[in-house]
Amino acid sequence: MIQTKVPINVRYAETDQMGIVYHGNYLAWFEVARTRMFKEVGLSYKRIEADGYHLPVLEAAMKYLRPALYDDDLIVVARLDEKPVLRIKINYEVYRGDTLLVTGATVHAFVDRDGRPVRPPPYVAEKMNEIFS
Amino acid sequence: MIQTKVPINVRYAETDQMGIVYHGNYLAWFEVARTRMFKEVGLSYKRIEADGYHLPVLEAAMKYLRPALYDDDLIVVARLDEKPVLRIKINYEVYRGDTLLVTGATVHAFVDRDGRPVRPPPYVAEKMNEIFS
Amino acid sequence: MIQTKVPINVRYAETDQMGIVYHGNYLAWFEVARTRMFKEVGLSYKRIEADGYHLPVLEAAMKYLRPALYDDDLIVVARLDEKPVLRIKINYEVYRGDTLLVTGATVHAFVDRDGRPVRPPPYVAEKMNEIFS
Amino acid sequence: MIQTKVPINVRYAETDQMGIVYHGNYLAWFEVARTRMFKEVGLSYKRIEADGYHLPVLEAAMKYLRPALYDDDLIVVARLDEKPVLRIKINYEVYRGDTLLVTGATVHAFVDRDGRPVRPPPYVAEKMNEIFS
Repeated sequence: MIQTKVPINVRYAETDQMGIVYHGNYLAWFEVARTRMFKEVGLSYKRIEADGYHLPVLEAAMKYLRPALYDDDLIVVARLDEKPVLRIKINYEVYRGDTLLVTGATVHAFVDRDGRPVRPPPYVAEKMNEIFS
Repeated sequence: MIQTKVPINVRYAETDQMGIVYHGNYLAWFEVARTRMFKEVGLSYKRIEADGYHLPVLEAAMKYLRPALYDDDLIVVARLDEKPVLRIKINYEVYRGDTLLVTGATVHAFVDRDGRPVRPPPYVAEKMNEIFS
Repeated sequence: MIQTKVPINVRYAETDQMGIVYHGNYLAWFEVARTRMFKEVGLSYKRIEADGYHLPVLEAAMKYLRPALYDDDLIVVARLDEKPVLRIKINYEVYRGDTLLVTGATVHAFVDRDGRPVRPPPYVAEKMNEIFS
Repeated sequence: MIQTKVPINVRYAETDQMGIVYHGNYLAWFEVARTRMFKEVGLSYKRIEADGYHLPVLEAAMKYLRPALYDDDLIVVARLDEKPVLRIKINYEVYRGDTLLVTGATVHAFVDRDGRPVRPPPYVAEKMNEIFS
């Protein structure tokens, strides 16, 4: 299992006229946390793309328990619970202090530059073996 | 059952460096289609808010089957399949021509200006009774 | 001179907690109007990119006279007043009915895929000669 | 003169299919830096809004010298060069290391909840007197 916690301060641009964070913006925060999680185990998504791979989102889901507000200091947790086989599922939680605001998950798979499904880059597969052994 | 189809032309701002529509942007399109669907049965979300109600998103989910691209002419379908009781579930499909690109759903409930759960405005409840009778 | 008018209905996602359209979002609308203007004279930005050219924004400026609101039906005007030489300057106006809300301008220049300044594609240069002769 | 430097790591969501940061997104970063600058001198924009004031953007301008890229570690500088009288002008610079990528400015004025121009809140005026004396 690998897990990362990323601090996010809510930007004004991320609010809507309901006075809360627009529900679509959590996906960008999930991505920030996911990217950081991979980076922390030595996998740079920037390098992965430079090597000709993409890791698009195949599925995404969110439950909004309580709204996040402008200027809130949040913690976004990303977590890889299981060793990915063909698909990579990542879970997320957004907290303000001890209060859980939002939970979510995304599912990904590697594709090449033309969008065709491919095996993960060897160094990603090795790293996953290493982490989940 | 009520259903609406809304044309969307993909904006450059909606793409990311993978060369496809950023996965978080579909939620804004769902909202465009949802708003239009309510408007077509005589329910203006703008008026609903002016009356002191909000209809926040409690859950959202998406499956990305194929990517949408810059300048694509898409059709976003919103559909209310069942009479809402406490929660309103809306289903979505995004098409390019006959090709289904993305499916999704959102779940909503009415709250007051302070975010407390409330019954729907009477004219919304009446309209739903009318549609689903 | 060429000019295009594009209707825009304000999305909820485009508002912020001030209850108005977030000031950064006008740039995406300018781009919608600019793209449409080029398309109407037979120049597809999608094709221009496929041919290996980009037309990045070098400068942008906006004056916000009055706020646009959720669900407003707006008209965004894009206008090319002068024959572009090395740089292309486009002017914009955003109206709600007869009321002018926002004015702006963007300046662009052609670059190749590596971001180096290049002459415009020949068919763009010809079209500009044709329009401004 | 007051000045603040804020680190920004470029999010994938902030790129477009040109492979660079979408030009409209700099305005959200300017706002992050502006908010931080005010907070550092003891002025919370959140409190200002809670007190019934807004500080909308009246003008914005940007020059894009070089593109920012995904995962870049940037520094966004916000600077108040002159004591604001009726209008507040803030200047911005975006750097990657020593390389200046983007410059910009925004102009603001205080309005009340109904959007009418008003004098700044007294504690803001006092703070400005203190800083620029």
